[in-house]
Amino acid sequence: MSSILKQRVRYAPYLKKLRTPEQCVELFKDGQYLGWSGFTGVGAPKVIPTALADHVEKNKLQGKFQFHLFVGASAGPEEGRWAENNMILTRAPHQVGKSISRGINENRIQFFDKHLSMFPQDLTYGFYTKEKENDLLDYTIIEATAITEDGSIIPGPAVGGSPEMLSVSDKVIIEVNTKTPSFEGIHDIDLPVNPPLRQPYPYTSVDQRNGRVAIPVDPSKVVAIVESTENDKVPPNTPSDAMSKAIADNLLEFLEHEVKAGRLPENLHPLQSGIGNVANAIIEGLAGGNFKNLSVWTEVLQDSFLDFFESGKLDFATATSIRLTESGFERLFENWDTYSHKLCLRSQVVSNSPEIIRRLGVIAMNTPVEVDIYGHANSTNVLGSRMLNGLGGSADFLRNAKLSIMHTPAARPSKTDPTGVSCIVPFASHVDQTEHDLDVVVTDYGLADLRGLAPKKRAQEIIKNCAHPDYVPILQEYYDRANFYCQKKKSLHEPHILRDALKMHLNFEDFGTMKIDNWDKKF
Amino acid sequence: MSSILKQRVRYAPYLKKLRTPEQCVELFKDGQYLGWSGFTGVGAPKVIPTALADHVEKNKLQGKFQFHLFVGASAGPEEGRWAENNMILTRAPHQVGKSISRGINENRIQFFDKHLSMFPQDLTYGFYTKEKENDLLDYTIIEATAITEDGSIIPGPAVGGSPEMLSVSDKVIIEVNTKTPSFEGIHDIDLPVNPPLRQPYPYTSVDQRNGRVAIPVDPSKVVAIVESTENDKVPPNTPSDAMSKAIADNLLEFLEHEVKAGRLPENLHPLQSGIGNVANAIIEGLAGGNFKNLSVWTEVLQDSFLDFFESGKLDFATATSIRLTESGFERLFENWDTYSHKLCLRSQVVSNSPEIIRRLGVIAMNTPVEVDIYGHANSTNVLGSRMLNGLGGSADFLRNAKLSIMHTPAARPSKTDPTGVSCIVPFASHVDQTEHDLDVVVTDYGLADLRGLAPKKRAQEIIKNCAHPDYVPILQEYYDRANFYCQKKKSLHEPHILRDALKMHLNFEDFGTMKIDNWDKKF
Repeated sequence: MSSILKQRVRYAPYLKKLRTPEQCVELFKDGQYLGWSGFTGVGAPKVIPTALADHVEKNKLQGKFQFHLFVGASAGPEEGRWAENNMILTRAPHQVGKSISRGINENRIQFFDKHLSMFPQDLTYGFYTKEKENDLLDYTIIEATAITEDGSIIPGPAVGGSPEMLSVSDKVIIEVNTKTPSFEGIHDIDLPVNPPLRQPYPYTSVDQRNGRVAIPVDPSKVVAIVESTENDKVPPNTPSDAMSKAIADNLLEFLEHEVKAGRLPENLHPLQSGIGNVANAIIEGLAGGNFKNLSVWTEVLQDSFLDFFESGKLDFATATSIRLTESGFERLFENWDTYSHKLCLRSQVVSNSPEIIRRLGVIAMNTPVEVDIYGHANSTNVLGSRMLNGLGGSADFLRNAKLSIMHTPAARPSKTDPTGVSCIVPFASHVDQTEHDLDVVVTDYGLADLRGLAPKKRAQEIIKNCAHPDYVPILQEYYDRANFYCQKKKSLHEPHILRDALKMHLNFEDFGTMKIDNWDKKF
Repeated sequence: MSSILKQRVRYAPYLKKLRTPEQCVELFKDGQYLGWSGFTGVGAPKVIPTALADHVEKNKLQGKFQFHLFVGASAGPEEGRWAENNMILTRAPHQVGKSISRGINENRIQFFDKHLSMFPQDLTYGFYTKEKENDLLDYTIIEATAITEDGSIIPGPAVGGSPEMLSVSDKVIIEVNTKTPSFEGIHDIDLPVNPPLRQPYPYTSVDQRNGRVAIPVDPSKVVAIVESTENDKVPPNTPSDAMSKAIADNLLEFLEHEVKAGRLPENLHPLQSGIGNVANAIIEGLAGGNFKNLSVWTEVLQDSFLDFFESGKLDFATATSIRLTESGFERLFENWDTYSHKLCLRSQVVSNSPEIIRRLGVIAMNTPVEVDIYGHANSTNVLGSRMLNGLGGSADFLRNAKLSIMHTPAARPSKTDPTGVSCIVPFASHVDQTEHDLDVVVTDYGLADLRGLAPKKRAQEIIKNCAHPDYVPILQEYYDRANFYCQKKKSLHEPHILRDALKMHLNFEDFGTMKIDNWDKKF
């Protein structure tokens, strides 16, 4: 037993339950329901999932040792290995990685994506374990970076759905990560309370805390602890480029305009931003821009936020996960005293809470697969059927924010055409965000302010301001034809020709580009 | 001046501003932005809108005397008359009535529908008046049933968006309705507070009140008061029938099962229900059933709730509007002392608040236009384009409820086929509720419990349990073909054939029935 492990585990009885990862394998049975800690690829268990995958590979148990697996959002590469070994029966509510999405799209994994604010709550309601004899998770495997004197768990870089999972787990296994420093003091934990006893969340500012720094757990449920010395492995961030900078410029100009018009204060409202190069470009733009005393209420923080703090423009940030690269975590711990007072990690039920997002007037920003001319957005399924990563918290934020913004390149390359995929389409092939949810659509070509506009006016703003020039005439022709068609039918609220509505997608399927040359073309 | 008016208006300075409706006409100018009180056809102004419509008709001002008109939800028949006289430029966020929907679908009225919980808030943000020189509504015309000593307004049967409208109005006109008794004591008013100062709503039970019984208004903004002796005119309720009773039976059986499984308490959670004969059949079923000590957190109460109270099963109900027929209002006032302690009307921002709906664990029930096999629902646009009434509060409730239920007949008649319209379709022609929002779909044929199911399992439950028998083989064939098609493309998460996805709708457009005889048919 390492001395650092003894130091981190301040509740001695747990140390009697110490096992190696390999010694944990016997605890598991085919068909069990498992909860894992973790969110956006950090803070998930690593050594036990690895031991289980080794066990399957060694004993050729692929397809015979399978689990219903729930994680707050995505876990690390370990879940990809599970997917490759056909160890996942069911997965919810979000995932990232080629292996796991391949398993879903090849129908080996039953995946359902759910609002990240709701998933842990619905788990505590018994909705996802209702086919079981008892309605509990068999195990929650949670990564801790320390254990308090009463056996409570201090997580690492993610809180996610762990408080809820622990509350409905039959048994608990703790991976104590001694490779990373302890994250003690950065968390603020709310415990699940279900109706009719649920109380208001008290938070009226991003930096407000209730003071609970660890997740309580019934020690009798803890059947094993394991030492882990595995780092989180986050790939390098996608740097901003000309396209993402153009989007960010359009968006920042809009925010400045809103401040001038008196609809936003000079320090804006708390910001939510996603993952990816557009999000990074926006954060860079804010860090280098004129806004001051900014704050962040979001679900995940990335390396760009460290620069944002260092710019002096960001006062406080809160999320459910801090997804940093190895060098990012080094920067965090080098300046721990500063950052731990400017950062707070909460459960995903709180970070993504409609209640708090609406109360604070958050400015939400997210990237879709595609947006249609009337303002519906697809966040999840390419060509209506192929799952990417899942809904995540996009709809938690976009439905409830004061300003709901979707940012996307106007077009993306296909295999044969540098602008073969238009991100503005006549009719979204899958709808995750409705026309009732979006205020602003912004691309590298411009910005459409949809607030207070009837659908036809929205369409004109989106086509004119946001579409790639290659697609402006194509989309305008669809829109004009739809108006003519619906004139006869007296259905001019949101004009569509249903037989044509998905033809840009069909053209892509058949010819590798959305540039349909003739709207009368038959498919 | 009638003695009853003097009695109702306890703030004397207003009486000096008394006008006839006709004397108010001169206050209005073409192009102004107006807020009206009212919600679901009750509590809206009547005599001033009528005087303005008379003025337009008498002076042939159709199309020359037009307004941007905002009402909490739908107003009374007066807005239909405005629509017929081409007096409405813009309308939001909801409407009911043939004249006004015709105006929208013929492109004479620019309509946008917005979540009813958000519309008043976004109005206070200046989002809908941003094209104006000042960002205020020119007038709010509000119906009162009494005025307090400090000039505050006691509404009638609807609170709706009135508190927010009054807070952003340049001037206010009050219609004091002396035909109806005063509704004093039935309201509980929250005033708008915007971020960053917004606080939690304190409500943790349906009967909790803050004690503010009237809406404060700056008396200097009140430019006129008018006496009104016009009743609200609510058409008779649609009675339940065999179809709606079958739906209700299926649903009540499910709720009983949830209680047995321990996922709901014996008195359930607060109920939300909509308008129409299915909603009425459910309320009748609950009134005659085994559940006791029930409570209601909803947006509108109808006559059926009076029977529900009288059954002894309902302890308390709260909404933003009480939409009763003439005889219903008579029953209400005959038993005012009882009902006024069991009823509470709040602003729509509160009745439809995601914060409170989620906290209380509401059971939400709503009727869609159609639901698709993967659990997306269309609440607003027939065949994707023709507006019915608008989104209303459906998404406020369905996104945030503990149990989100959509109930619909499995099929409806078309002109030529008694089951020509299937309410279960392969792909919704418009999406207002996403697959991430619905827990249960129920028809007269059965119930699909979608909780925790991946899309393909959802499809099988919905087709098997909910579709009309005429459509089961048609839908199953689509689903089987889509699985085959997506197998090749490795996109089996939510299998669709986009070229076929809307063919049941196209078949209806061309042949008057959704019963497509051949999925290879070209349109």
